[in-house]
Amino acid sequence: MTTKLDFDLSWLAPETLKAWPFGELKTENAAHLKETLVKEFDYYSEPFPEGDKALRLIVEDTPEVTLDGYKVLEDKDTVKVTANQPEGLIYGFFHIVRSYQQSEQPELSTLSNPKNKIRMINHWDNFDGSVERGYAGKSLFFVNNEFRLQDERFNQYAKMLSSVGINALTINNVNVHQKESYFITDSYIREVKHLAEIFRSYGLTLFLSVNYAAPIEVDWVDSADPLDDKVREFWKNTAELIYEHIPYFGGFVVKADSENRPGPFTYGRTHADGANMLGEALKPFGGTVFWRAFVYDNHQDWRDKKTDRARAAYDHYAPMDGDFADNVVLQIKNGPMDFQVREAVSPLFGSLRKTNQVLEFQIAQEYTGQQKHICYLIPMWKEVLDFDTYADGPDTTVQDMLVKYPENPERNGITAVVNTGMDENWTGHKLAQANLYGYGRLIWDPSLSAEEIAKEWIQATYSLSDKGRETLLDMLMTSWDTYEKYTSPLGIGWMVQPNHHYGPNIDGYEYDMWGTYHYSDRDGLGVDRTVATGTGYTRQYHGENYEMYENVESTPEELLLFFHHMPYSHELKTGKTIIQHIYDTHFEGFDKVLEYQKQWESLEKEVDDASYQNVKERLEEQHRCAREWRDQVNTYYYRKSGVDDAKGRKIYK
Amino acid sequence: MTTKLDFDLSWLAPETLKAWPFGELKTENAAHLKETLVKEFDYYSEPFPEGDKALRLIVEDTPEVTLDGYKVLEDKDTVKVTANQPEGLIYGFFHIVRSYQQSEQPELSTLSNPKNKIRMINHWDNFDGSVERGYAGKSLFFVNNEFRLQDERFNQYAKMLSSVGINALTINNVNVHQKESYFITDSYIREVKHLAEIFRSYGLTLFLSVNYAAPIEVDWVDSADPLDDKVREFWKNTAELIYEHIPYFGGFVVKADSENRPGPFTYGRTHADGANMLGEALKPFGGTVFWRAFVYDNHQDWRDKKTDRARAAYDHYAPMDGDFADNVVLQIKNGPMDFQVREAVSPLFGSLRKTNQVLEFQIAQEYTGQQKHICYLIPMWKEVLDFDTYADGPDTTVQDMLVKYPENPERNGITAVVNTGMDENWTGHKLAQANLYGYGRLIWDPSLSAEEIAKEWIQATYSLSDKGRETLLDMLMTSWDTYEKYTSPLGIGWMVQPNHHYGPNIDGYEYDMWGTYHYSDRDGLGVDRTVATGTGYTRQYHGENYEMYENVESTPEELLLFFHHMPYSHELKTGKTIIQHIYDTHFEGFDKVLEYQKQWESLEKEVDDASYQNVKERLEEQHRCAREWRDQVNTYYYRKSGVDDAKGRKIYK
Repeated sequence: MTTKLDFDLSWLAPETLKAWPFGELKTENAAHLKETLVKEFDYYSEPFPEGDKALRLIVEDTPEVTLDGYKVLEDKDTVKVTANQPEGLIYGFFHIVRSYQQSEQPELSTLSNPKNKIRMINHWDNFDGSVERGYAGKSLFFVNNEFRLQDERFNQYAKMLSSVGINALTINNVNVHQKESYFITDSYIREVKHLAEIFRSYGLTLFLSVNYAAPIEVDWVDSADPLDDKVREFWKNTAELIYEHIPYFGGFVVKADSENRPGPFTYGRTHADGANMLGEALKPFGGTVFWRAFVYDNHQDWRDKKTDRARAAYDHYAPMDGDFADNVVLQIKNGPMDFQVREAVSPLFGSLRKTNQVLEFQIAQEYTGQQKHICYLIPMWKEVLDFDTYADGPDTTVQDMLVKYPENPERNGITAVVNTGMDENWTGHKLAQANLYGYGRLIWDPSLSAEEIAKEWIQATYSLSDKGRETLLDMLMTSWDTYEKYTSPLGIGWMVQPNHHYGPNIDGYEYDMWGTYHYSDRDGLGVDRTVATGTGYTRQYHGENYEMYENVESTPEELLLFFHHMPYSHELKTGKTIIQHIYDTHFEGFDKVLEYQKQWESLEKEVDDASYQNVKERLEEQHRCAREWRDQVNTYYYRKSGVDDAKGRKIYK
Repeated sequence: MTTKLDFDLSWLAPETLKAWPFGELKTENAAHLKETLVKEFDYYSEPFPEGDKALRLIVEDTPEVTLDGYKVLEDKDTVKVTANQPEGLIYGFFHIVRSYQQSEQPELSTLSNPKNKIRMINHWDNFDGSVERGYAGKSLFFVNNEFRLQDERFNQYAKMLSSVGINALTINNVNVHQKESYFITDSYIREVKHLAEIFRSYGLTLFLSVNYAAPIEVDWVDSADPLDDKVREFWKNTAELIYEHIPYFGGFVVKADSENRPGPFTYGRTHADGANMLGEALKPFGGTVFWRAFVYDNHQDWRDKKTDRARAAYDHYAPMDGDFADNVVLQIKNGPMDFQVREAVSPLFGSLRKTNQVLEFQIAQEYTGQQKHICYLIPMWKEVLDFDTYADGPDTTVQDMLVKYPENPERNGITAVVNTGMDENWTGHKLAQANLYGYGRLIWDPSLSAEEIAKEWIQATYSLSDKGRETLLDMLMTSWDTYEKYTSPLGIGWMVQPNHHYGPNIDGYEYDMWGTYHYSDRDGLGVDRTVATGTGYTRQYHGENYEMYENVESTPEELLLFFHHMPYSHELKTGKTIIQHIYDTHFEGFDKVLEYQKQWESLEKEVDDASYQNVKERLEEQHRCAREWRDQVNTYYYRKSGVDDAKGRKIYK
């Protein structure tokens, strides 16, 4: 398989289309996207000269369509895409591309409305060219404190994101360092504008992460106090400057008072004070402030068992519901800790009714194998979106809450830390593309199943035999479970190498200041987060969930150690003790990786060489690393518990 | 207290002299040192104009004097220093300075011969200005890949080293990176020469650490194979170039095939092949090669309990005894692991009879508190030098072996990684000066006691009351024991934070590849190095020591866990179990630090402000860190053993 591109974008390559029957394109009323649509049409029709239907893309009042959704109507001569917003035409166009990838004679007519208004990605790219938690090479945007000059690649990237319905992005790290603080100034606004234009041509709105201390950092203001007039003036002037250059600029993402970043606390102000002050500056231009809720005490004392990092976001933000301006959005990570392979769902979802909110996922596999391990994350994200908060009684899922409150949500949705970089295949691990693809597809339509999405990506990316498709589908669909099995058990999380977070280190964070402990001793392990005997975190959930988590019997076992400190001898529903469960899952998880290696080898003749080598090499590393996890976890718990493996397998003593 | 200098060198300041009776200096036959001696004489006599005796410094045949020793004879009008080598005059001169610091009416006449011929320090300074394992600021010699321009400071430094009898140094890190590889080329030889001249004026010979792969790195040679003619030619030419510029250049220090450094192994050659090839190149000029014996498998598998890093140096070098050229010196660390607060003495001492050897200490407190904690190391070094190897029956100490073999040792002695940098007081922690001072004094005369040396340094540095002197002496003399108490127990070592090696991390190296394990489980801890049931390391010692270490009963308890895996319940000679010993020592060690803080406060009015603040601040950090050690070690072992503290003190569970 080859593509026209010098890097991997196979799910968008015309070669993967089964057919393309369009001989003519008509677009109307889509001014700023028209050029893009023409270009894309040419791209896909070029290898199919026999096309005979006409493709009509029209912005017109379409009552069934909401937000930037689209409607497709096919008849004998024409396929007509209509949308209320021009961007809907792009998504409709890619719907057609996708349909022809999936089938030779697809059913094109459809009505498709996105569930979420905001469908965003966040880059954690630094101006020096590095990417925080980046596992796919250097930054796409920056190198050596300069903006990269590679418009073709930026266009491809915008297209890739747009093809799965993503409509917003930030280009720089939420940890905004000194040099990046100047992005919002005259020094770099032209470079930012240039990128914003490219992304806009594919329907994406560009945002910037900003340094809360920018008034001090880039100007002569001696404060960042949100109630200080000089500070407000600084941000007002800054907004004017930005919008003068970029009228369609999205706004700011802010990480304040978090992990050593400056914020309103410095001045004895609330986060609402801080966020609203920025909101006020952006309001005349329609801009939005994303305010990250990832705030906790990162100088915790490991001796202190009462302070619970899991409680922090709720404790801090739940009482402020209603305090934020209407162009401020609270950005809340899916779980209360930090993107672990398994953790509870943040109790903030279901608790805010008067606050704009976006849920934040992490496509970048920081804690889930760093794009060296296969870990298809859609099943995890679906569990989060489908989690019943009981906020308005049963069947009030997280996804429902995201679109339900505040009552007229103008700025709600989903965002995620993205997993792309300068690597040829964009995501380092070829199969990690499925996470980016799936992220876009899922947040557009959360009713899609993880399996449907995986099948779609496989079909769009490779030309496989039936057996090959099944094989690859099995690899993807089991991979999260596999990764969970050989890493930390039963929802307790962490146990990773500090700082870089790759590979096992059972006690790596146990005596550190990050609030991430497992409290393993010779008798048991786990964090007691109950009201009865623990930190009281369970009380942050609505009644039904509180009761579920408060009691050992009703706590879902995959989260047992997240909520309870349990003896090794505790019997799980499988009839196994916890210690035996630890041994079994670690042996099984590793064995599954061996199986992946064989499965992938069976695909050698069906996939392109670059893909084959890429995944093969990463599977070797996954094998090595999974073995390390298996043995370190088993040895650690054998040394602590003294319990032999019931099946007599090798545990190093 | 003030000094003439803008940085701390108090033990050499004329202000600390009680008197200086010399009115006139006469020097004879000390050509390259004469200027130095005149300058130093002027320096000390300037504040004492009433001097009336004459000081005569003469190089003349003095049969009682050996090596670069000296003899001092005082009569009514004259003090006469004689030496066989000009350098002896410098040491004699500083003997007089020291004597007047210690007493108002000192007994000057003496005969003083150094026990060790080579008395060296090694800088681990990098060209970029950093110092590997440096805790006293930036490099003295380099900044931003340039040689520093600060001749006055270099002169002070040379004087400081010379004043305690040190006669050789390397200026750059044994890990020779790319840029430093060029020090031996035309690019930097003039800068090296400039430094060599300064140090020579105080009797010190300058050496360079070299990159074994230099032929590849700095030239077009495509190999570093020691038996390749092109490689030999490269080193021959290099030696010629160096000695053409610096006829008194000392030679090379080489870390090869160690911790990822290149070496002869790459070409299937032995270390004798590699070292002798360099020796051959230096031989025409009288140069010396120091070949570091710090070679072990640093990609060990933690699962493998049979491979023992402690065995590595002996296993590798003992069979090669006699294979090295007579201008090659094997440089052997004091212990078989790596400068731990407590470890066994390297069994290579007592095993080599046909090999030049230097023992390597570490003045830099890498594993002993990094010059933030007080840790006076002379008692440790004395134990090493006094360790009975039984090589030639009883009373064959390490120090004896160093000067006894080979039979005509031309190149034996002691070296050490030094603890100095750009900090005002040279050593970061003011009291760490005592380690540098003491190192020089001890290796000149190993019969001096640790207490004598500490008293001398205190007296030379401060003007204290009797009580003050006692207080500071107690702090220094107990500090090693204190540090040992609150860190890893009973000789097992490690348990430090990986990489930087500061602060506790009990399992930090437990599942790593460095061969540094403690094997703690719910029943016990320690490394079994016996022949009977362990790695067989004990067999590397001569009979008496082998038997001592092979058996639990005769193993000195401070090394019990270095040699044996023991149950927590094992009763020590104190009647305490090991687990209780762990608790007790950790509480005691921490409490002792509190005492140091009080002791130091009692000295506030007796020491200079800079000293007072410096040590006070570091004691606060020592307090914080010792508490962390105490609690992490106690909690870790409580969680593993489940045994309560017999005295009911607070252990976090």
